[in-house]
Amino acid sequence: MADVEVHPGQRAVVELLGVLAYAELTAFDRLAEDARLAPTLDGRAALARMAAAEIAHHERLTARLHELGVDVVAAMTPFVAALDAFHDGTRASTWLEGLVKAYVGDGLATDFYREVAVFLPAPDRALVEEVLADSGHADFALREVRAAIAADPAVTGRLALWARRLVGEALTQSQAVMAEHDDLADLIISGTGDLTGVGALLQRITRAHMVRMDALGLPS
Amino acid sequence: MADVEVHPGQRAVVELLGVLAYAELTAFDRLAEDARLAPTLDGRAALARMAAAEIAHHERLTARLHELGVDVVAAMTPFVAALDAFHDGTRASTWLEGLVKAYVGDGLATDFYREVAVFLPAPDRALVEEVLADSGHADFALREVRAAIAADPAVTGRLALWARRLVGEALTQSQAVMAEHDDLADLIISGTGDLTGVGALLQRITRAHMVRMDALGLPS
Repeated sequence: MADVEVHPGQRAVVELLGVLAYAELTAFDRLAEDARLAPTLDGRAALARMAAAEIAHHERLTARLHELGVDVVAAMTPFVAALDAFHDGTRASTWLEGLVKAYVGDGLATDFYREVAVFLPAPDRALVEEVLADSGHADFALREVRAAIAADPAVTGRLALWARRLVGEALTQSQAVMAEHDDLADLIISGTGDLTGVGALLQRITRAHMVRMDALGLPS
Repeated sequence: MADVEVHPGQRAVVELLGVLAYAELTAFDRLAEDARLAPTLDGRAALARMAAAEIAHHERLTARLHELGVDVVAAMTPFVAALDAFHDGTRASTWLEGLVKAYVGDGLATDFYREVAVFLPAPDRALVEEVLADSGHADFALREVRAAIAADPAVTGRLALWARRLVGEALTQSQAVMAEHDDLADLIISGTGDLTGVGALLQRITRAHMVRMDALGLPS
């Protein structure tokens, strides 16, 4: 539960906006860092543009938190450890690893946040859907990774292992977040109806992940 | 001279747009890197927002280069070595060094580009002036550095030395750029009238630098 004074019914909203605001800030960091791994100036500028788009989303979320009278830093702070641990545990060491992370990792996170947003009240639901809308990241990453695999199929195995590591680390950290944030967990369980509903939600996320791995040409 | 096919009269324009486009990309990189040195989430988000603003400028410049039928990468490439050398030679190792670089280094560069922009034909002159308009960087950096000096005057000496290193490295690299880019050098010499004019231009830049050092509370 975020350490801020809000109406109890809004706690889950503030938690979701808080985790997303910090997620966008770390996404910026990571894309900016990975931009430096780009083999060309074009690729570097492309990743820098994506990073800038994340900051625009971050600003939309913090503006809404301000509007709700919530301290932005207090709303983000509870999620710093888990999100930093995810990124520290999955630091890309090559341009292709960075792109797979942008496609597979961001895809998973986006699907998850989008499922949760469905349970939010109207204005915040629309806001979260807006900041989650793809800013062209996916297409760019997909195109580059597919081209690299076509040019050198030997990279497939290494990238598949890398994607598996991303999924494992994402699961670990999202469980840690849920365990510590009751309001967010309650929102998901009451929103989906019961644990069967939660199972169905996880199945949808898993299926979408397998479609992405397929699109990349990687075994999932 | 940029290795692109343009009308000879436009060569200096393409060179200036090219160097600025790459300068914005490296400014993004450096601000994104320095954001990670921030002692607070607020400060980190502030630098990330500045980095995003640089990319917006980069996009305005590359859109104009496209419009002129110029290959953007070809226009930026001649300036990569000098600008990378500047940043590699002045890598901030603390949050305050990063802010002094943002204020003093960007201030110098902006003054220089603005002086050159005066000699450009109408549409490009306005574009360059627009992308050079301060996006709030200066105020933020100034406020933070002044507060840090007030809290611990002992940092003054080290930061003054750092600012001197920034100026020295900027001079070295801008001379290297001028030596290799005749059209840009011609534009400045013919624009200012003669070498006396160039001297006056350098005096204006130097004076503005001293005003900035004074504002920071650092001896220049």
